[in-house]
Amino acid sequence: MLTIHPPKRFLFGPGPTQVEPRVYEAMSQPVVGYLDPYFFEVADQVKKGLQECFGTTNEMTLAISGTGSSGMETAVSNFVPEGSKFAVIVGGFFAERLCEMGRRHGANIVRLEKAWGETAGDDEVREFILRERPATVAYVHAETSTGALQSGNAICEAAHEVGALVIADCVTSLGGVKIGVDDTGIDIAYSCTQKGLSCPPGLSPFTASALAVERLKTRARPNTVWYLDLVLLNDYYSAAHKYHHTAPISNFYALREGLALIAEEGVEARWARHLENHERLVARMESLGLSMHVAQGYRIPHLNTVRVPEGVDDLAVRKRLLADEGIEIAGGFGPLAGKIFRIGLMGPLATADNTRFFLDAFAKAVR
Amino acid sequence: MLTIHPPKRFLFGPGPTQVEPRVYEAMSQPVVGYLDPYFFEVADQVKKGLQECFGTTNEMTLAISGTGSSGMETAVSNFVPEGSKFAVIVGGFFAERLCEMGRRHGANIVRLEKAWGETAGDDEVREFILRERPATVAYVHAETSTGALQSGNAICEAAHEVGALVIADCVTSLGGVKIGVDDTGIDIAYSCTQKGLSCPPGLSPFTASALAVERLKTRARPNTVWYLDLVLLNDYYSAAHKYHHTAPISNFYALREGLALIAEEGVEARWARHLENHERLVARMESLGLSMHVAQGYRIPHLNTVRVPEGVDDLAVRKRLLADEGIEIAGGFGPLAGKIFRIGLMGPLATADNTRFFLDAFAKAVR
Repeated sequence: MLTIHPPKRFLFGPGPTQVEPRVYEAMSQPVVGYLDPYFFEVADQVKKGLQECFGTTNEMTLAISGTGSSGMETAVSNFVPEGSKFAVIVGGFFAERLCEMGRRHGANIVRLEKAWGETAGDDEVREFILRERPATVAYVHAETSTGALQSGNAICEAAHEVGALVIADCVTSLGGVKIGVDDTGIDIAYSCTQKGLSCPPGLSPFTASALAVERLKTRARPNTVWYLDLVLLNDYYSAAHKYHHTAPISNFYALREGLALIAEEGVEARWARHLENHERLVARMESLGLSMHVAQGYRIPHLNTVRVPEGVDDLAVRKRLLADEGIEIAGGFGPLAGKIFRIGLMGPLATADNTRFFLDAFAKAVR
Repeated sequence: MLTIHPPKRFLFGPGPTQVEPRVYEAMSQPVVGYLDPYFFEVADQVKKGLQECFGTTNEMTLAISGTGSSGMETAVSNFVPEGSKFAVIVGGFFAERLCEMGRRHGANIVRLEKAWGETAGDDEVREFILRERPATVAYVHAETSTGALQSGNAICEAAHEVGALVIADCVTSLGGVKIGVDDTGIDIAYSCTQKGLSCPPGLSPFTASALAVERLKTRARPNTVWYLDLVLLNDYYSAAHKYHHTAPISNFYALREGLALIAEEGVEARWARHLENHERLVARMESLGLSMHVAQGYRIPHLNTVRVPEGVDDLAVRKRLLADEGIEIAGGFGPLAGKIFRIGLMGPLATADNTRFFLDAFAKAVR
C-alpha cells in the first residue's frame, strides 16, 4: 500500500508551485538508460523548450542535474575563477548567496548595495562596473526574497565594455516573465523547474553564450567541481554523448512535458496571463488598503510581495489560510521578516478563477 | 496529449534498473513545500530506511539532491581538504573518478593499483595505508565497471590506526548486497537510487559517522562547494530546518516508497534474493561455456560481469538482445572494452522467472 499521502495544498507561495497532472503523468513513464537514444531525444526537446523560454539561440542550453542552487553553483564554479574580481548587484537573499559562493570559490567580491526590494538604476550600475572593472558580473533578475525585477540591459552593456561576462539568476523568472537572454546580452543564466515552469524541483535549466563557452576553454585549470563541470556536461549532452553521470531521467520527462505545455499555450501568452493576474491581485490589494512592497514597474508579475499591514501578525494570517483553505503562501525573511507576504500566481494557478479564489480567501484571512 | 512515450525496455544493465509501479505512483503525488512538515516526515522516513540499508545508526544519514556522482563529490569536497593526502584503492573506473575529484579539490593523491576486476588483499592495503599515512582513504565497495566487490574491513582498521577517515563508494552496493557501514568501520558512504534501490535516478543516499562529523567541524575553511556543504545540509534536514535549497520533493517521495518496499520484503531477504539469482546466472553461464570476469567470492551479486567469448562481437549480442527482446545490458569500457558483458539482476528483475527470461534470451543472442 502506497506510503506517500501528501496533504492537499494550493501552492500560492514562491515555489514549489502547482504542477499540471500531465507533468506528473510524464514523470511516471518508465525510465530508460542514460545513453538510450530516447533519453537524448528528450534532452534535445528540453533544450529547444528552454531556448524558447530563455529567449536564446545558445547552443549550450541544458538542464543541470540538481535544483536551482546547483545552477548557481554551476555558474559561479565555471565562470568565476579563483582570484578574479566578481561584481554582484546585491538587493536580496539570493544575491547574498551569489556572493557567498563566489567567496568560497576564491573570488574577490565587490558589491553594489541596494535595499531589499529596490533595484539598481542604469547610471549607478554603469558607474559601478566601469569603476570596478570586474571579470564577472552577477545580478538576480527576479529576486524571490523581495519581489523585485532587475533590468539587465545597462549591466550587460557596461560589463561587455570592460570585457566581463554577465551571470543572471533567473531562478524565479524563467517561464513566468520575459528574460530575453540574447536581446539583453546575458552570457550565463540559470533557473529552476518548480517556479515559472510549473514542474517538480530537481533540475536547473542553464544557458551559456558562445562568448562564455570561449571563456570556459581558456580556464587555467578545470572546474574544482567535477559534478558541475560544463566541459564534461557538454561532452555528454552534445553529439559525442560521452558518459558523465546518470541523468535524472524522470525529472527530464517532467521538464519536457512542462515545456510542451508552455509551447502549446505559447510562452508570450503565458507571460501575458501572469501579468493579467498580477494586475488583478494588485487592484484587489489596493482596494483592501494594502500596498505592494516593490515600486510599480519593477515588480515580478508572478511573485507578488504585499506589505503586512500595521498591527497584523503575518504568521497568523498564513496559518489561517493553510488551516481554512489549504493555501500556502510565504512570509518575508531577513530584513523583511514579518513585513511582507510573498504570493505566487504561477502556471495553473494564474487564472482568473484561481486568482479570485485566492484573493477571496486572503481578504478573509487578513482581516 | 502526453509527449513522453519511452520505448519498452527490460533494464538488465548496471542501472538505471527497473522501477516498481508503486514507486512511480508515489513520485507523482502532489508536491508540497520544502519547509512543509509533511516533507520532513518523508525525509525522516528516508533517513530510517537508508540507515537500515547502509547498516548504520549514523545520525547524519540523508539524501543529497543530485545523482550518485554528486554523492561522491559531497564526500570528497567535505572530507578531503586541499593539500591533504588522499589514498585511493584503484581497480576500476569509479576509483579513477575519485582520484580525479580529489585532484580537483587540491589533494595529494596516492594510489594502490589493481587490475580492473581484481580486489586489494588485506595485507597489501594495510602495508599501503601504514606506509602512506593519508588523511583520508577511499575505496569502491562495488565497482560497476568491473563487477568486483572490495572488502572494507582491513582498509578501515589500518586507516583508523593512522587517524584517517574512510570513504566507501557504495553506488552499486546499497540495497543490493550487505554493506555494514558500522560493522566495517566506514566513516563516509554514498550511493545512488537507480541501482540496488530500484528507484529513478536523482538522489544520492549519504551517511557520515560521528567521527566524520567531528572532522567536519575542524575544517580550516568551509567547503568550496556550497551546494554540497554538509554543515548547511545538516542544518536543513536536522531539527532546525534552516532553509538551504529546495529539495527535489518528488524524488524523495519515490525514494521513500522504494525503501518501504525494501522494508516490506526485509533487506536481508532482498540481499539473499539477489545472491540466489546471481548463482542461477553463474551456473547457466558456466553451462554455456562462458566464464565470469571476477574470481568467486569477490563478485557483486546483482551486477555480473561475464567474459565475452573468443570470436564473439559483444556489441552485436547487445543489439540482438535489444532488438529481439527489448533487453538492455551493458558492455565493458576502458581496459575491459569488448571483453565483458555487464548484467544487472536487481530489484524486481532478480526473480527466478525474470532471471530465466533473461538467461534464455541471452543464450540465444550469444550463440
